This record gives sequence, C-alpha cells and structure tokens, in this order.
Amino acid sequence: MSLEGLRVMGIDPGLTRCGLSVVQAGRGRQIIPVAVGVVRTPSTAELAERLLRLSRAVGEWIDDYEPDVIAMERIFERGNVSTVMHTAHAVGVMVLAAAERGIPVHMYTPSEVKKAISGNGRADKKQMTVMITRILGLSEAPKPADAADALAIAVCHCWRAPLIARTNQLTMKAANQ
Amino acid sequence: MSLEGLRVMGIDPGLTRCGLSVVQAGRGRQIIPVAVGVVRTPSTAELAERLLRLSRAVGEWIDDYEPDVIAMERIFERGNVSTVMHTAHAVGVMVLAAAERGIPVHMYTPSEVKKAISGNGRADKKQMTVMITRILGLSEAPKPADAADALAIAVCHCWRAPLIARTNQLTMKAANQ
Repeated sequence: MSLEGLRVMGIDPGLTRCGLSVVQAGRGRQIIPVAVGVVRTPSTAELAERLLRLSRAVGEWIDDYEPDVIAMERIFERGNVSTVMHTAHAVGVMVLAAAERGIPVHMYTPSEVKKAISGNGRADKKQMTVMITRILGLSEAPKPADAADALAIAVCHCWRAPLIARTNQLTMKAANQ
Repeated sequence: MSLEGLRVMGIDPGLTRCGLSVVQAGRGRQIIPVAVGVVRTPSTAELAERLLRLSRAVGEWIDDYEPDVIAMERIFERGNVSTVMHTAHAVGVMVLAAAERGIPVHMYTPSEVKKAISGNGRADKKQMTVMITRILGLSEAPKPADAADALAIAVCHCWRAPLIARTNQLTMKAANQ
C-alpha cells in the first residue's frame, strides 16, 4: 500500500508556543518538508483571547495547506499543572478546528514519535533534531525545538499510516466475514 | 451598583455530561431561572466528534439565550487523569465558543461556588441542591446534579459580579489618578 502524496500536518501542542508543520509523503520512506513554524500567544493575555488566536492560526494553516490528516502529540500530566491544563485547552481547540473541517486527527505519545524517528523511544532532543534534519534532507536543523517536534510528529504519522491503513483493512475484512 | 437584568450562563464543564444554565439577576439578590439542561456526548464516539457536538450545543445555547457573561467552574486535577484531560479539552472548546462571540468568561473554583451559595465552602451536594432550589424558588430540585451545579455557578457569578465590577472601577480610578 503506497501513501505517496499523503499530506500530513504535525502539531506539537501548546498555548504559549505551538509547533506546526506540514510534510508530504514521497516514494517509499521519502518525506518532503512543506512548511514549519511556531504559533505563540502572549502569557499576559486572557485564556479566551489566547485560545481564539490559536484557533484562528491553526485554522489558517489547515485552510492554506489542506492536509489530509493531522498528527498531534498526546499530552500527559507532567510538570506544572497549570501548563498541562493550558496545553489540554489548546488541544481541545485544535482538535475542534480539525473536526470542523472534517480532517481526521491521530495522536501519538512522545515515545512513539521518538521510536518512529530514531528507533529509540528514549532519544533525547539533540538526537531527534539530528535525525529529523537528516530524514527531511534539510540544510540546517529546524528551530525552535517546538518546530522540530512538529516535524517529527508529522514524519511519525507518514511512516505509521501504512500500518494503520493495513490494520483498518484487516479489521474491516474480519468484521465483514 | 445594581446588576438587575444581567443575564448569566453557568457551565459545569464536562465532555460526557456538561451542565448548562441561564439565569437573570433581579432586584437585590433575587435571581430568575431562565433555562437549565445537560449536554451529553457518547463516550464511544471519537474525541473530535465529541468536541464538535459540544461546541455546537454550547454555541446554540449562547446564540439562543444571549448571555452577557459566562461563569464556568474552574477544573482541577482530581480523580481519573483521562477524565480531567477530557474535561480540559471541553473547557478549551467552550471558552473558545464564548471568545468567538465576544462574551467574557469568569472562572470559579468549586469552593467559591459552594461558599457563595451556602456560606460554606465545603457544603455537600445535598446541601447545595437544597439551597439552589430555595434561592431560585423552584418547585422541585433541579436534576441531574450537573444541571444543579450549572445553576449554582451562574448564581455565584450574579452575587459576585457587583463586587467584581466595584473592584474594577476602583482599580481603574486608581490607575487614572
């Protein structure tokens, strides 16, 4: 099963900094980078204002780049409670932006992304940046870290999508028997 | 300062069950109930589908009842992590629905709501239901619990709004001096 041409938007969710990327699957395991960036909302602004800005920015990315699917990092309780809650609010708003446009969302844990990119679920930031720079054939490492993470999430989906598609096919086949 | 006529929408946030209410401030401490209900989304549906349904339902309530302000319960890390995350996603989507319509959102902790309604920040569900039924002059207790909670949050804001308005006035006065 070939997914050549599949366009994936990767999101490293956050309210203060949200990494966004778009990549396109090429032949075999080849992946072509299309866009990468970071959306920031000021921590001095009210939550409502920040969510509104993020929602509009992500909506514009989706409308501009027309991805077939969105891959997002699954968040966990880690570190500061208030940051986790803010990130969870941001995820809600971005999943909604995708749903309103009929675009499916897949979530991946950080270790799933690390494993897909580097073969090691515990790879550090430096290793991940080296790998993603090489995979996408970039002349320099993507910055900031959130942008590199967003690219890694999108690449992770490109490589896992054929497996997901195959599993779905087999599940449907089994259900129809 | 009188807030007679102020229309407040109360939200007890949740993804599986979300309590919604609308009340209107009358003379003095009088409060008139306008609407109360619960929006449910099936736990078997995908997150994107659930958030889309919730967003549309809350948007319809806002458009139908045209509240001046929305009061929402502030969520904490408590109980099941997955439930807290789902609730946080739901909050993000509902705060966005308010922001898109230019309606301010105020958050209250459960103990602030309990204190405002019953004078006791640790009041139990039964005491709260008795108080809210009496305050709104209802012939029977509102059901289910999420609906009663949504009413309590709206009433809490009605009674705290004059104080918030006075504080804002004094702050602005001080800033202009």
